Amino acid sequence: MSITVVGSLAFDAVKTPFGERERMLGGAATHFALSASLFDQVNVVGPVGDDFGDAELAILATRGTDISDVERVAGKTFFWAGEYHWDMNTRDTLDTQLGVFETFEPKLSANSRAADVLFLANIQPSLQLSVLEQMDGPRFTALDSMNLWIDIARDDLVKVIERVDCVTLNDAEIRQLTEKPSLVAAAKELLAMGPEIVIAKQGEYGAVAITSDTYFSLPAFPLETVIDPTGAGDTFAGGFVGAIATGADIRSAVAYGTAVASFNVEEFGTDRVSRLTREEVDGRVAELHALTTFDLVIA
Amino acid sequence: MSITVVGSLAFDAVKTPFGERERMLGGAATHFALSASLFDQVNVVGPVGDDFGDAELAILATRGTDISDVERVAGKTFFWAGEYHWDMNTRDTLDTQLGVFETFEPKLSANSRAADVLFLANIQPSLQLSVLEQMDGPRFTALDSMNLWIDIARDDLVKVIERVDCVTLNDAEIRQLTEKPSLVAAAKELLAMGPEIVIAKQGEYGAVAITSDTYFSLPAFPLETVIDPTGAGDTFAGGFVGAIATGADIRSAVAYGTAVASFNVEEFGTDRVSRLTREEVDGRVAELHALTTFDLVIA
Repeated sequence: MSITVVGSLAFDAVKTPFGERERMLGGAATHFALSASLFDQVNVVGPVGDDFGDAELAILATRGTDISDVERVAGKTFFWAGEYHWDMNTRDTLDTQLGVFETFEPKLSANSRAADVLFLANIQPSLQLSVLEQMDGPRFTALDSMNLWIDIARDDLVKVIERVDCVTLNDAEIRQLTEKPSLVAAAKELLAMGPEIVIAKQGEYGAVAITSDTYFSLPAFPLETVIDPTGAGDTFAGGFVGAIATGADIRSAVAYGTAVASFNVEEFGTDRVSRLTREEVDGRVAELHALTTFDLVIA
Repeated sequence: MSITVVGSLAFDAVKTPFGERERMLGGAATHFALSASLFDQVNVVGPVGDDFGDAELAILATRGTDISDVERVAGKTFFWAGEYHWDMNTRDTLDTQLGVFETFEPKLSANSRAADVLFLANIQPSLQLSVLEQMDGPRFTALDSMNLWIDIARDDLVKVIERVDCVTLNDAEIRQLTEKPSLVAAAKELLAMGPEIVIAKQGEYGAVAITSDTYFSLPAFPLETVIDPTGAGDTFAGGFVGAIATGADIRSAVAYGTAVASFNVEEFGTDRVSRLTREEVDGRVAELHALTTFDLVIA
């Protein structure tokens, strides 16, 4: 049993009201892998440049993640710079340098192709499609995307959505994609395209899982101090998909994703999740359960 | 046992992507009373103008609400006009005419003063203080406020907060008042001022109840169609305070407030809640319980 993730490996420059990092390991596949590896064996597929060192590879390989499909390419690693506003819920992108991602064409090894779970992190939809076609026949597939691809590659994105089991998007992206203001109506439209599960990520407000016959909403874990929200969505996806891979039901999987994501934002970059333990995650899932439960007593 | 609410009785003009009403009954005390009267006897205190007719008084008196402290004053009833944006989460205020509210000084009858529960809807903090001082000694007091008073009457608002048991505000207002970006930290600061309960209203994302030893977060009830969000916060407060008045615990009371508010937004103005039944509310509380529950099973 293993999970393959295809997506960006990056250097991030992040400025928040609580501090600043000029260059730290980031990228969607990185955050996903660190989170999913708390649950299952992970294979990472993605390109890095000459500037990606052994220290970064060592963090990627945390908890036995297989990095043999991390492809080293001449050039620079993907770079993103952003600054968060006072309330940490919104951010400005200051710089994006695609680097080796400009010419990336995913080539999966036999090991990565054989995984029974696939996560297509946020990359160009045509590349997501190419990865899907290389897989041997995974039991569960999920994707993430972003507003850019909805704007410039909508048709390709819809083709991938039609073929995966689960779509994870921000609620604003779900509304943008479907042009429906109601999340319930928008999710119905996405489900009608093919997926069995729609996950609406809502940042500090939590996440919602919608299927044709269930609706489950879970708030985020309340934190007094949020240091760096970068990668929270991918960390959530890693916990969610990781828990699904090990047999959790959808609701528990949302709780696992939420729990791991809450640790991610407590420190910069990969600092917290790279040393996180399953016991800590299980403890926070139990706390989440306690703070969302109410007795059904008629007043 | 009864609940006294002091606040605005109004005419609203509302435009949403789903329609438009040029003049309908509104106001914070109106929405609160219609909701709280599902749980307990309500007394409404507030001024109306010459233009407030018997039809409006009849709606206010739904489910036995006592309207003898509705004071008729020469002049025009408070008027608010607003337009909601596409996603219904944000709105522009197009017009506000204080009318008879400009000179309003609350005078409570013996019956209103004797209520064991008091809700100070969003009015000038100095008036809220005057009402508090007229009460005989209520068992539970709660207030609402808004960004305007935080801007121009902060000291008075803090004086009222120091004397009530419960503060209900939007999360943005809680952050503005405390100047703390973290809701957890901001709520702690509010609790330190005196109240035992802080309710953070989060619109379509739900509500959070915070005390010194508990934190409870409940998502909003998911709706495929939202017609008019006006008064949702006051309707929530009416359900919450109403349930507290009848002995519900804080968590159940949040669920009751959430349930009634979800009905409010399904039609314009007071249309839905004025004909709502307790059975319908209880049913939706049970649905809320079902869609927020997960089994604590370690993945």
